[in-house]
Amino acid sequence: MTAADPAPASPAPQHGHAPKQDRSRVTRERILESTIEALAERGWQATTTTVVAERIGISRGALQHHFRTREDLFLTALDAMFERNLQLTMRDEERLPDGDERFDVLVARIMDYYTSDAFTAALHVWTAAAGEPALRDRILPLEAKFARGVFEQAVELLDADISDERTRRLIQLTLDLARGLGLADVLTDDSARRARIAKFWAGELRSIKRR
Amino acid sequence: MTAADPAPASPAPQHGHAPKQDRSRVTRERILESTIEALAERGWQATTTTVVAERIGISRGALQHHFRTREDLFLTALDAMFERNLQLTMRDEERLPDGDERFDVLVARIMDYYTSDAFTAALHVWTAAAGEPALRDRILPLEAKFARGVFEQAVELLDADISDERTRRLIQLTLDLARGLGLADVLTDDSARRARIAKFWAGELRSIKRR
Repeated sequence: MTAADPAPASPAPQHGHAPKQDRSRVTRERILESTIEALAERGWQATTTTVVAERIGISRGALQHHFRTREDLFLTALDAMFERNLQLTMRDEERLPDGDERFDVLVARIMDYYTSDAFTAALHVWTAAAGEPALRDRILPLEAKFARGVFEQAVELLDADISDERTRRLIQLTLDLARGLGLADVLTDDSARRARIAKFWAGELRSIKRR
Repeated sequence: MTAADPAPASPAPQHGHAPKQDRSRVTRERILESTIEALAERGWQATTTTVVAERIGISRGALQHHFRTREDLFLTALDAMFERNLQLTMRDEERLPDGDERFDVLVARIMDYYTSDAFTAALHVWTAAAGEPALRDRILPLEAKFARGVFEQAVELLDADISDERTRRLIQLTLDLARGLGLADVLTDDSARRARIAKFWAGELRSIKRR
C-alpha cells in the first residue's frame, strides 16, 4: 500500500488470514483519522505518536508497526484524508445541480475542502515544515498534488475552457482564495462571512468560458 | 508608549536623561525586529525569549525589562511590524501612479504585505494560538485591526465606492486572496506565480465602482 492509497473498503475475506488483515487495516485507518483529529485540535508540537496511540487505545509500539516515523505518519494521514475529501466533496457529480446553481454548490465545496480538519492539520504541519527542510521537501509535492486535483475537478465539473486565460486564472484564483479563507477560519468560526463570499464569488465565476 | 505605537524616530535629546531613553528605545526596537526575524525563520516553538535576546547580544533579563512575557513580546512585535509595513507599503500615496497602473501597483503592494516576514511570523503565532485560547483572544483583534487597515487604505487609494456591494466585496476578497497567496509563499518562493495573479487580479479589479 503506497502513501497515496486511501485505504479502500476491505474486500470480503478470501482465505484464512483475511480477518487479521482486516483488523490491521481497520487499525491503520483509525490511526490516520486520529492523527488528523489530534493535529487539527492540538497542533504539530503536541501531536506525538504517543498521543495518537493513546487516543485510540493502542500502544506506541503497535502504532510504530504501521508507521515507522512521526513524519511518515503525518504525511500518510494528510494524503489519505485529502484524497478522501476530494472524493467526497468534489467527485460527487450526481448531486451537483445544473445551471447557475452549479457554481454556487461547487464554490462552496471547494471552500469546504479548505476548512476541513485535514486542512487545519495540514496547516500545522505546513508551518512546522517552514523550519524543517526535510519535512518541507515531502509536504510540497503533497500540496501540489491536491491543489492540482481540486483544480482539475473544478475544470471538469464546470466544463471550463481553460485554453481561455481568464477562465484558467479565475479557477486557479478560486483555490488561492479558498486557502486564504481556510486560514481565516483556523482561529475563529468564519463560516457566515465565508458563505457570503462563496456566493458572491460563484456569481463572478459564472463569467468563465465554457466548453 | 502603547503596543500600537510603532516606535517613531527619536526626537533630539532635550534634557540630561534623553540619551539613556534613546538607548532604551533603540534596544526595544531591536528586540521587536529580532523577534519577527526569529519567528519568521524558526517558528513559534524555537523562538524563545533567550533566542531573541541572544540574537542581539543582550541578556534575557534585559529583554524582560522591556517585555514581561513571551506573549507580550510576540504580540507587540507583530503589532509594530504590521503598522510599519502598512505605513511603508500602503500609505505612500505619492509613489502611486494614476489610471490603470494604480491598480497594478496597489494590488502588488497588498500582496507584498501578506508575504512579509511579519506575515510569516504572524502565521506561526496564529497556528500556535489555535491550541492556546488566551493567545488566540489576543491575536484575533490584532488581525482584525490590520485587515481593516489594509481594506480602508485600499478603498481610499482606489477611490472605491463601497456603497456598491460588488465593489466592497471585490476589495475584501483581495485581502482573502492575498492571505491565501501569503500562505502558499511560506514553504516555497511563489513570487513569480503571485506576480502573474496580482497582474490578472488588478485587471479584474478595474471594474469596481469609483467615487
